[in-house]
Amino acid sequence: MQVYLDNSATTRVFDSVKDACVRVMTQDYGNPSSLHYKGVESEKYLKEAREIIAKSLKAKLQEIIFTSGGTESNNMAIIGTALAHRRTGNHIITSTIEHASVYNVFGFLEEQGFRVSYVPVDEFGHLRQDILEQTIDDDTILVSCMYVNNEIGSVNPIAEIGALIKRKNPKTLFHVDAIQAYGKCKIVPKNMNIDLLSVSAHKIHGPKGVGFLYIKDGTKIRPIIYGGGQQKGMRSGTDNVPGIAGMACAVQEIYTEHEEKISRLYELKEYFISMLSKLSDVYVNGLTGRDSAPHIISVSFAGVRSEVLLHALEDKGICVSSGSACSSNHPAVSGTLKGIGVKKELLDSTLRFSLSVFTTKEELDYTIETLKELLPFYRRYTRH
Amino acid sequence: MQVYLDNSATTRVFDSVKDACVRVMTQDYGNPSSLHYKGVESEKYLKEAREIIAKSLKAKLQEIIFTSGGTESNNMAIIGTALAHRRTGNHIITSTIEHASVYNVFGFLEEQGFRVSYVPVDEFGHLRQDILEQTIDDDTILVSCMYVNNEIGSVNPIAEIGALIKRKNPKTLFHVDAIQAYGKCKIVPKNMNIDLLSVSAHKIHGPKGVGFLYIKDGTKIRPIIYGGGQQKGMRSGTDNVPGIAGMACAVQEIYTEHEEKISRLYELKEYFISMLSKLSDVYVNGLTGRDSAPHIISVSFAGVRSEVLLHALEDKGICVSSGSACSSNHPAVSGTLKGIGVKKELLDSTLRFSLSVFTTKEELDYTIETLKELLPFYRRYTRH
Repeated sequence: MQVYLDNSATTRVFDSVKDACVRVMTQDYGNPSSLHYKGVESEKYLKEAREIIAKSLKAKLQEIIFTSGGTESNNMAIIGTALAHRRTGNHIITSTIEHASVYNVFGFLEEQGFRVSYVPVDEFGHLRQDILEQTIDDDTILVSCMYVNNEIGSVNPIAEIGALIKRKNPKTLFHVDAIQAYGKCKIVPKNMNIDLLSVSAHKIHGPKGVGFLYIKDGTKIRPIIYGGGQQKGMRSGTDNVPGIAGMACAVQEIYTEHEEKISRLYELKEYFISMLSKLSDVYVNGLTGRDSAPHIISVSFAGVRSEVLLHALEDKGICVSSGSACSSNHPAVSGTLKGIGVKKELLDSTLRFSLSVFTTKEELDYTIETLKELLPFYRRYTRH
Repeated sequence: MQVYLDNSATTRVFDSVKDACVRVMTQDYGNPSSLHYKGVESEKYLKEAREIIAKSLKAKLQEIIFTSGGTESNNMAIIGTALAHRRTGNHIITSTIEHASVYNVFGFLEEQGFRVSYVPVDEFGHLRQDILEQTIDDDTILVSCMYVNNEIGSVNPIAEIGALIKRKNPKTLFHVDAIQAYGKCKIVPKNMNIDLLSVSAHKIHGPKGVGFLYIKDGTKIRPIIYGGGQQKGMRSGTDNVPGIAGMACAVQEIYTEHEEKISRLYELKEYFISMLSKLSDVYVNGLTGRDSAPHIISVSFAGVRSEVLLHALEDKGICVSSGSACSSNHPAVSGTLKGIGVKKELLDSTLRFSLSVFTTKEELDYTIETLKELLPFYRRYTRH
């Protein structure tokens, strides 16, 4: 049996997405900047995609900028804001458990002379709002924090954080990395004081190499890529029409009968956790209820190294992740797990199981049966 | 009849490219950063793509960095070099007829305090090497120039220019925008003193949203996008595996029986020009022989506005371009045409016809017949 439980790393595309990509690559392949009918028909895909995506966030058409993916969206949001507002202030804030595509950008800006503050999280992986409040000052131009944590599935109370930021300093912009949240949560940026929001298509069964950045109307931000002036100069380069059309299909599909889809994911997650809890010396990290993300389950297996268990599961056809898997190659010890206070001896014994709309109960049963078989065997070989 | 003669704007993908994209999107959809077999199988596509592309340039595997397209490649090459070498020098050079994804990046860097020189071209669209030689000094860290001009198809003597640069200042890096050249010309960067070379997939029947940058081994350059450390930290973000696999297929196909393909393109171009020369008051701009690019023909039609003729041709099913079409929306008067001294009254009467391996003689015959029919009609309505 092949069981793919690494959907937070990437997903299989919906068939409708594949069909859209094929149609645009082989028939409607014009350059949207061309003035003839093949350009015009290509431009229509962009317009339609923008409408679908804007609608999913109750946003305006001009608030959606297509990018090459979540990493570019995060870079553009953070560098673009920092460069555009340098005269207003020099202070930027993020949390201690952000994805590399946020924290490494803060590292770059720190090197460029910006003052950076890192706000810690509590035992549930939530941003410490009390500390955030003390950290924001008159010089703060940006706060960036993730919506759903990619390793443990904690969900930040984004609307509360947004309100806090604007209360403390109305000029501070709020960027939200929603790469693990979009498609799972209902997000309305304008009701949550969000100024910038990053999304990636391949986490929601869209194509790799495409994403978008929501930029609230009137928000001043500089582009990070210059050229032919596409997307009103905010993101130059021939538009990736097949990717964008595919992304729009994925958005359309994931947000159709959305509550049913999410409810089903929660049921699967709860079922999986209930089965895991019957195994000895197995600990589920972070929150596990409907206040956590519906698709991510972080599990520590005392006495087994995560990489060993990952490969043992792989041998049985089950794909899971140690660490976040978005970081390239070998996983370092997770800052998130340390951040929420996972015991030292469990840090290197933790796997992430991440579900999708394609996941079935049978796959989870098979995974539990496999774990039951593997754990005693591998624990026997662990040094004490 | 539908005739697509705007292949310098973008191309239809090869069927093999479409098939590769579909396979990767629906079956081999893993994240190459994942440690399990779906990650490993995905990583194999990247490795194979790198091999195919490196081979096409006689380059090393580690010299190829995948990007989101030609515009990002140009931005990365120029900004990345400027930031990495600021301590060595502050002077950067380009030509007056570069694509927007080069000249707008120079504009950005000028604003950041770099000293920028713009070297003019001669009547054939070739960089003025005598002026370049006078312009390079001890402070020059970068020269960027295009291989094939996107509007008139002029081909710069890149190896000569490369030799000149290194003779004048061995520390000066040489970036070549090869977006219209790759797939048409045989390029061996290490024999031409090229340090950085930008390529886009969708100009050679690959997918949109993907390209690469050749970076000569040992060349110091900073990334412009930060994150999970993919591609040895040079370009973070989940690799666009379907796009990259598709690009590799396109490279494979375009460089198979390459000389035959190019020879056929030249024959078509020569045939088209010979037919055009029989029409009155029609002028082909720039060089037209085998010292020009095989796929681009810039033609001025005295007494007709280019936009009018473009739409009249469109009505007959023929897609061509006015201006470069890479720049978004309405074409401004072309700097390239002015640069090579096209008469003022013809600047706004110029169309670009660009061919591909899919172009047939029958399509060109139909285009000539259509022009014969349209030109007298539209000239009658032009004010004198």
